[in-house]
Amino acid sequence: MASDIPPFSGPPGPLFDRLCLLGIGLIGSSIARIARARGDIARTVVAHARSAATLDRVRELGIADVVEADPAKAVQGADCVIFCVPVGAYASLMATVAPHLKPGAIVSDVGSTKGSVVRDLLPLMPKGTHLVPAHPMAGTEHSGPDAGFAELFEGRYCILTPLPATDPAAVEKVAELWRRCGSMIETLDPATHDKIVAIVSHLPHLIAFTICSTADDLAEETKEAVLKFAASGFRDFTRIAASDPTMWRDVFLNNREALLEMLGRFSEDAHALGRAVRWGQADYIEDRIRRGRKIRHDLIERHQA
Amino acid sequence: MASDIPPFSGPPGPLFDRLCLLGIGLIGSSIARIARARGDIARTVVAHARSAATLDRVRELGIADVVEADPAKAVQGADCVIFCVPVGAYASLMATVAPHLKPGAIVSDVGSTKGSVVRDLLPLMPKGTHLVPAHPMAGTEHSGPDAGFAELFEGRYCILTPLPATDPAAVEKVAELWRRCGSMIETLDPATHDKIVAIVSHLPHLIAFTICSTADDLAEETKEAVLKFAASGFRDFTRIAASDPTMWRDVFLNNREALLEMLGRFSEDAHALGRAVRWGQADYIEDRIRRGRKIRHDLIERHQA
Repeated sequence: MASDIPPFSGPPGPLFDRLCLLGIGLIGSSIARIARARGDIARTVVAHARSAATLDRVRELGIADVVEADPAKAVQGADCVIFCVPVGAYASLMATVAPHLKPGAIVSDVGSTKGSVVRDLLPLMPKGTHLVPAHPMAGTEHSGPDAGFAELFEGRYCILTPLPATDPAAVEKVAELWRRCGSMIETLDPATHDKIVAIVSHLPHLIAFTICSTADDLAEETKEAVLKFAASGFRDFTRIAASDPTMWRDVFLNNREALLEMLGRFSEDAHALGRAVRWGQADYIEDRIRRGRKIRHDLIERHQA
Repeated sequence: MASDIPPFSGPPGPLFDRLCLLGIGLIGSSIARIARARGDIARTVVAHARSAATLDRVRELGIADVVEADPAKAVQGADCVIFCVPVGAYASLMATVAPHLKPGAIVSDVGSTKGSVVRDLLPLMPKGTHLVPAHPMAGTEHSGPDAGFAELFEGRYCILTPLPATDPAAVEKVAELWRRCGSMIETLDPATHDKIVAIVSHLPHLIAFTICSTADDLAEETKEAVLKFAASGFRDFTRIAASDPTMWRDVFLNNREALLEMLGRFSEDAHALGRAVRWGQADYIEDRIRRGRKIRHDLIERHQA
C-alpha cells in the first residue's frame, strides 16, 4: 500500500508551464492559492468555472492568472489539467475539453471516487495524454472559491490511483504537485481506494445526512427541542452534514457498490446493537462500545486523531 | 418547554450545608471543582466513589472536603445528594443510602435518562425527602476524576424533570445550583426529555459506536487502511465513540423505548437513501442532503453550532 513513486527528479523551477483547474471551489481554489504562494507549481494558473458569479469572485480574489468561462479554451496549451468539479460532471466536461487538450498533457482530478474517474475519463483521453487520478484526503464542510486556503492539504494523505500502463514520469509530476501542496502520497488501485473511502468517508457522510433529515422529520414540537438541546454528539453530525449537496450526491452515485456494501454491514451491526438494547444484553452492548473505543485508541496512537 | 422555575430567593451564602456527590467522574468532579472555586454552592463537599484508586486520586486532586468509601456514611447529614454514577447503578445504590438520608434531604442526579431515574429512585425515597432529577447537557469523551473541569457546564442547558408534586423550594435550589455552575435551566417531563435526548444524543452515540465496530470488523488489510486514511468524517465519529462504555451501556438500556423508536426511524431513512443510491435517484439523494444542511443552518442561527 505504501507509495512506490520515486522522488521527483525533474528540473528545478515550476513543475508545469500552464496548470488548468476545471472547477475552482474548496479544493481547486486551495490549489490555486498554493500555486500563487509557492511559485514552483506552475508559471500560469488558469481557472475555469461554470457560473459567472464564481468567475467574478475568482477575479476579485486574484487567485488565478487567467479566468476562463469556456472549458475548451481553458485547457488549451495546459500541460496539466485538473478536474475539480463534482465527479458526476466529469464525463460531459471531458467530452467538451478532450479535443482541445495539448499533446502530452497530464489529466488529473481531485474526486472522492476513483473507479468512476477511470470509467468516465480514460475512454476519452486523446492518444499521448496521461491520466493520473488523485484524491487529496482533505476538506471542510465549506464550499466555493472563498472556502479554499493554502494549508488545506498540509500533512494529509493524497492517494494516486494510476493505471499500470500510465507513464511513470506523469505520475511523478502529479505526486510532486501534491508533495508541494504539503501532502503525503500513497498509491492504490481504484477499487481498493473506493472500498476504503466508502467506510472512512462516504458512509459517515451518508449517516450524518440521514440522522439530520430524520431529526428534520420529527414533529414540529420535538424538532424545536432537537435544535435547542443539540448535544455535542448531534452537533458533530450536523457539521459533517453541512457539506456540498451536489458533490456528495455525485460521490454516492459514483461509489455505489462499495457504499452499499458498507451500508449493509453497518445496518446489520446497528440492528444487532438495537436488538441487544431491546433484550437487555448488557455484555454485548459493552463489547461493541469497547471495540469502537479501540479504533479511536489506534487512531490516537497514529497521531491522526 | 421554557423553564417556569422562579429565580432563587433563598438567603445569600452557600446553597447547601453539606453536598454529597455519589460518584466523582467527569460530571461529579466538575461539580466538585466548581463548588470549591465558588464557595457559594456548599460549605462541605463529600465525594464517594466505589474504587479505592478513584478515592485516592480525589484526595490527591484535593477537590472534595471529605472522601468517603462507604456510600451510607457519605450521605449522612447531607442536605443535597447528587447521583453521579451510571444510571444502571442508581437502584442498588439508592437501596443502600436511602435509610441514611437526612430528613428533608434533596436527592438529585446527572443521568442522561430521566424516566428510569424516576422509576428507580422515587419508590425508595424516604418520606419528607425531595427528588429533583437533572440532566446537565454537557460532557466530553473523557471520563474519571481527572477529566472534570470547572467550565464544563458553562452556557449549556441543564434539564430538570421534577414531578408535579415535588416541593418547589427543592426544585429552586437544584436549579440555582446549576445556574451557579453556569448552566441555563429548562424543565421537561421525563418522557419528553427521554425522547429528545434519544435523537440528539443517544442515537448519535449508538451510531458512532456501531460504525467504529463495523470498521473494526473489516478484514485486517482494509482495517489498516481505515486507520491510515481516516478522513475527518470518520474521525469525528471515533471521538464520539471514545466515551465511557459502562455509562453508555446503561444509558441505552435505560432509554430503551425512545432509543429503539429513533433507531427505527433512522434505519428506515438510511435504507431509503441507500435504495436511492442503488437506483440512481439523484433528486431524492440531493433533497435528503439539503434537509440535513437545513438543520445545520438552523443550529448556526441559534449560535449553538
